[in-house]
Amino acid sequence: MTRELGIGLIGTGFMGKAHAFAYRAALAAFPDIPVPRLEMIADVAPDLATKAAHQYGFARSTGDWRALVADPRVDVVSITTPNIFHKEMALAAIAAGKHVHCEKPLSPSLADSLAMVEAADKAGVVTQVGFNYIKNPLLKMARDMAAAGELGEITGFRGIHAEDYMHDPESPYSWRIDPAGGPGVIADLGSHIIGMARFLLGPIAEVSADVRTVVTSRPVARGARERKQVLVDDVARILVSFARGCGGTIEANWIATGRKMQLGFELTGEKGSLVFTQERLNELLLYKAGGDARTSGHVKIEAGPQHAPYGQFCIAGGHQLGFNDLKTIEMGEFLGAIGAGRKSSPDFREAYEIQKVVEASIASSRARGWVRVA
Amino acid sequence: MTRELGIGLIGTGFMGKAHAFAYRAALAAFPDIPVPRLEMIADVAPDLATKAAHQYGFARSTGDWRALVADPRVDVVSITTPNIFHKEMALAAIAAGKHVHCEKPLSPSLADSLAMVEAADKAGVVTQVGFNYIKNPLLKMARDMAAAGELGEITGFRGIHAEDYMHDPESPYSWRIDPAGGPGVIADLGSHIIGMARFLLGPIAEVSADVRTVVTSRPVARGARERKQVLVDDVARILVSFARGCGGTIEANWIATGRKMQLGFELTGEKGSLVFTQERLNELLLYKAGGDARTSGHVKIEAGPQHAPYGQFCIAGGHQLGFNDLKTIEMGEFLGAIGAGRKSSPDFREAYEIQKVVEASIASSRARGWVRVA
Amino acid sequence: MTRELGIGLIGTGFMGKAHAFAYRAALAAFPDIPVPRLEMIADVAPDLATKAAHQYGFARSTGDWRALVADPRVDVVSITTPNIFHKEMALAAIAAGKHVHCEKPLSPSLADSLAMVEAADKAGVVTQVGFNYIKNPLLKMARDMAAAGELGEITGFRGIHAEDYMHDPESPYSWRIDPAGGPGVIADLGSHIIGMARFLLGPIAEVSADVRTVVTSRPVARGARERKQVLVDDVARILVSFARGCGGTIEANWIATGRKMQLGFELTGEKGSLVFTQERLNELLLYKAGGDARTSGHVKIEAGPQHAPYGQFCIAGGHQLGFNDLKTIEMGEFLGAIGAGRKSSPDFREAYEIQKVVEASIASSRARGWVRVA
Amino acid sequence: MTRELGIGLIGTGFMGKAHAFAYRAALAAFPDIPVPRLEMIADVAPDLATKAAHQYGFARSTGDWRALVADPRVDVVSITTPNIFHKEMALAAIAAGKHVHCEKPLSPSLADSLAMVEAADKAGVVTQVGFNYIKNPLLKMARDMAAAGELGEITGFRGIHAEDYMHDPESPYSWRIDPAGGPGVIADLGSHIIGMARFLLGPIAEVSADVRTVVTSRPVARGARERKQVLVDDVARILVSFARGCGGTIEANWIATGRKMQLGFELTGEKGSLVFTQERLNELLLYKAGGDARTSGHVKIEAGPQHAPYGQFCIAGGHQLGFNDLKTIEMGEFLGAIGAGRKSSPDFREAYEIQKVVEASIASSRARGWVRVA
Repeated sequence: MTRELGIGLIGTGFMGKAHAFAYRAALAAFPDIPVPRLEMIADVAPDLATKAAHQYGFARSTGDWRALVADPRVDVVSITTPNIFHKEMALAAIAAGKHVHCEKPLSPSLADSLAMVEAADKAGVVTQVGFNYIKNPLLKMARDMAAAGELGEITGFRGIHAEDYMHDPESPYSWRIDPAGGPGVIADLGSHIIGMARFLLGPIAEVSADVRTVVTSRPVARGARERKQVLVDDVARILVSFARGCGGTIEANWIATGRKMQLGFELTGEKGSLVFTQERLNELLLYKAGGDARTSGHVKIEAGPQHAPYGQFCIAGGHQLGFNDLKTIEMGEFLGAIGAGRKSSPDFREAYEIQKVVEASIASSRARGWVRVA
Repeated sequence: MTRELGIGLIGTGFMGKAHAFAYRAALAAFPDIPVPRLEMIADVAPDLATKAAHQYGFARSTGDWRALVADPRVDVVSITTPNIFHKEMALAAIAAGKHVHCEKPLSPSLADSLAMVEAADKAGVVTQVGFNYIKNPLLKMARDMAAAGELGEITGFRGIHAEDYMHDPESPYSWRIDPAGGPGVIADLGSHIIGMARFLLGPIAEVSADVRTVVTSRPVARGARERKQVLVDDVARILVSFARGCGGTIEANWIATGRKMQLGFELTGEKGSLVFTQERLNELLLYKAGGDARTSGHVKIEAGPQHAPYGQFCIAGGHQLGFNDLKTIEMGEFLGAIGAGRKSSPDFREAYEIQKVVEASIASSRARGWVRVA
Repeated sequence: MTRELGIGLIGTGFMGKAHAFAYRAALAAFPDIPVPRLEMIADVAPDLATKAAHQYGFARSTGDWRALVADPRVDVVSITTPNIFHKEMALAAIAAGKHVHCEKPLSPSLADSLAMVEAADKAGVVTQVGFNYIKNPLLKMARDMAAAGELGEITGFRGIHAEDYMHDPESPYSWRIDPAGGPGVIADLGSHIIGMARFLLGPIAEVSADVRTVVTSRPVARGARERKQVLVDDVARILVSFARGCGGTIEANWIATGRKMQLGFELTGEKGSLVFTQERLNELLLYKAGGDARTSGHVKIEAGPQHAPYGQFCIAGGHQLGFNDLKTIEMGEFLGAIGAGRKSSPDFREAYEIQKVVEASIASSRARGWVRVA
Repeated sequence: MTRELGIGLIGTGFMGKAHAFAYRAALAAFPDIPVPRLEMIADVAPDLATKAAHQYGFARSTGDWRALVADPRVDVVSITTPNIFHKEMALAAIAAGKHVHCEKPLSPSLADSLAMVEAADKAGVVTQVGFNYIKNPLLKMARDMAAAGELGEITGFRGIHAEDYMHDPESPYSWRIDPAGGPGVIADLGSHIIGMARFLLGPIAEVSADVRTVVTSRPVARGARERKQVLVDDVARILVSFARGCGGTIEANWIATGRKMQLGFELTGEKGSLVFTQERLNELLLYKAGGDARTSGHVKIEAGPQHAPYGQFCIAGGHQLGFNDLKTIEMGEFLGAIGAGRKSSPDFREAYEIQKVVEASIASSRARGWVRVA
């Protein structure tokens, strides 16, 4: 397969840059995918788009995302703008027959997300949503081990995604906590750990959550005396019940002082367990029961070429992948799926399923009891 | 103060031995307490009691705990027998005017525990319950830091006590899971982490729990084909709301394959956080916000003489305390309180308060919603 | 500066791929450097070169490295072939006026390496050698802290680079242990940790080493009964004395069973210390003396945008760099130096200085005593 | 065996207290040893001796150690005084037919130590020297694994004992650095890691060392302007060659800023390796080659009853031993050996062998080359 795919990237910020790195590296890592041709980049500020085109190697730039979506040389549209714009951009891209990568969450509203899923399904385009952390080679192995029964019957899951970028009550009010963008941390970080739980163990059937706003007001600007009431959540603590039967807990927290990337889990089965944290993303702890009691313990597995697709980046163990490499795996799989004419994962539908867990948790917190994930 | 206290110890098993070590070491560590005189040891098997008297240095032994409780040279009674015997022994000891140390939980029934509390209060004897882990010098500092506001307003607590001694579904049915002894893991391990949460942050006002029996039947004996239904819980996952306002989660789990002593917490405040695990009981992680961003991070504090009462055991840092040392601190404080004529901590009342959280959690799980801790 | 630089890459193996990733990512990370134009890739096997050109996005390929070196559209030559070819290729590239990046070590012979240094100096081209690990943002900070006196007078350095790719005595004889390629582990891994020591603390003045061949023979092929004597070293243990006065040790080891990337150090000063291991390359431990004894300890610093140039890859802390990102920093600095018309670092001369320490260590081991680094 | 042994303890400081704890706990941990009867305690300050007798439960006290040594009810003498007194006390005790425990090192002078060894041998008394760290149950297993060939041919040892109690150049001159007491850190800490190396791998045949005084003068008192020249070593870095053939390094360092108990090693064999640090004394890392590459890695073994004699202290894993428990094991073995009429270990002769390595290292540093351990 040597077909090319013209890439159109909307947004040049944090995630725009990550997409650019990934599209630039994808073919070097995955030589069998269609060749990504960096066709056009858009930003609401045309000068930023021009600068980014130079920096990231895109052939053209534009201040008008609609021009990008409509461009006949663009086959794939990557959406990295704030959540409130996802729906309009994605629907336009789908309508133009483009394959679409969209950063999570799909949209602030579950109904809008469903509309996006249905439009993509109807158009038959390939979609992908940026749940990059599960692209970790060690997590792929973790999922396979759980699926193959290597840990025995699964008996529990404890998942966390905690960071501290909102821990300071004097951090000002911002777009991030504008309820127009949807819920707070439960959508921003919670969706990652919910997605990871589903990736590892399948659907979550029921939730009972405590979703809280802890910092109830914030200054309207850095140092301002005027404060504005905060309406979105800072912490979500969720009891979960998986469809497969086992229970667990999930926490999403953006006021977790000191934590920069506490995304991880302990997954326990009758015969073994796995412990992971994104803080040390190239390590996975494995315990297997039944060995020599004298020398049993958690094994610290270090990522290496024996954990596909690590070897696409480096043939030697111990060298380690970084965040942008995970994004490259994501893009490699997405482009590969387009080339092969099959669905990619996690796609719009999976993102919608994750969002349903988010919404059920919020509903549960209000109802002060268990709620089924519809 | 050079007054002596005659010690009577009931039980010679796991905890009986721990008490013996602690009573033998207490004066060496805490020279100002009354001298513990090892007066009598009781076991239902008189030969075990005789052997233990030699091994632990008790002057006399008996097969009849009532003789011990009644003995005029016994001032303090330590109860380390199975839970179902605690009430009768404790009430008898209190009736005889003895000070009483009882292993946790006080009794299988909350009503019985209250009776024990009230009897002790009425008699004016000093009581103590074996929540040994909070005797850790580093946890005393943690509590002090939280209380002094060094972490700012507390915004969250995530507590766990997970071990794996019941993880194997083929482990036979035993006294440990006989419902006559009270609930399962939520009492056995859960009480430790609930006690630790209260020690650090004060009362828990409300809970919403998922308390589960995962291994629903066990063989009647090792290797037997006949199985018996399990009625007590294997895992308890609890959303908690502290009286001070902050939320959190608590998990108790005795099927946590691979974990031998995962008792710990992450305690987060607006200005800092603490991370602890009993797996590394001589370490405490501290994060303080607001420092130089370049060199900020979690500080790994290693226990040393600057953390009282570590220095009572060793004048040099880095040497480390072990489990039996924590028990020695517990006994030192208990005997010191008796000598000083004041209450010790945690006493029967505190154990009762912990048990109320356990019972509220079980009720909450049945009700599938929040329950106030009465 | 928008000048372009035509890149010519010789070699398509492990390091060839790493260079390709780095050249593809360099501008995205460092927008102010000259634009790297992927001009030509060479491999002794022309079909591999063709395939690599597609995969890595080079415009042309060749089976003849001399054609690449001579090509007028090639401004920069990257050499990633086995050591024995470095000299000839580098001298040819320098003669053609190209800037040269060469993987370490420069050459098997110190005299040949000096010839390479002198040729480059004379030609005035910019050179760089692939000591990628010191490109870590945290190590740049470590060096700056040591230089600024933040750790006080430096009193010791303990450096290690240990891996296990040769630990099995049944691993067959290969090019890696052919003495024609130079010394064994002391050149292969030792040069990295020696380079890191020099990066942090400056020149090493004297060494006293024990350089050993442990696996004295290896099968001529996997599973073969015939064995061949091994003449190069498996372990080097070196006492070092830095020109600045402090002492230390350095170990290089490729039979360190279980270690995949134990490259690290403990650097101690009168007022503080630093601990680093490439096994957790996004973490640096810092201890500063003189703080509150109660809360002192090693701080675990997690890499973030406050540690330049991490922020060129990601604006948020905790996301982590990987090995290929370090290589991108290396290439970004190299291309930036070319654009600015200044020397890059570590250049051929620095590689030569490192090799002098290697050679002095070997001489010291033979002499069974201290040897000055000339 | 129910024979009693009258214990006489000389010294009531740091180590005196550790001995007291250990003698008080020994029988509880090891019920089959002779009963230690706490007969007499001596301190040059009689009031301290009186106080200590109360605190530690000794029957009598004295200000005259000769009275203790001569007392007919004293069977065992424990010497915990400064090094310069060891010889005289030990020889007197031996002459009186007592069994002797002496803290390390035996004496400042190798010749004096040999005299102590010979006197003990001649008298046929049981001796023990306080190398407590090797009493760790996990290290006993480590030694057994190495001896049984579980790690294959041993190829390397990297040992360290580094602390920081002398790191501050303003710490005043003290008895600790008075050359009358013998060498500096190489004796104080170096003897521990040399002893550990010998315990694990047997005799050290040759050494090449760099033994340095780093802080060359210290104030005569805290804050004083007058300074006194330091004549003993602050850091010793030693290349070692074991009699069994393998090489290694050993470092002793008391100016290792930030380290409180960095006593540990990495021991590597062709088939496996072990990593240990006293900083986490209840953990041992084990790597075994040849397993499933996907799930291989270092196993973190947590101490438990499967590692004798841990089970003498607690029947459940994960509870952890502390420093004083190691001392109890030491005393239990010592008293057990006396009861059984056999040698204990490490005895005076082993301490002398360790001291020979210390002396050879100092000689090697002066000679700037390898020196055989006589």
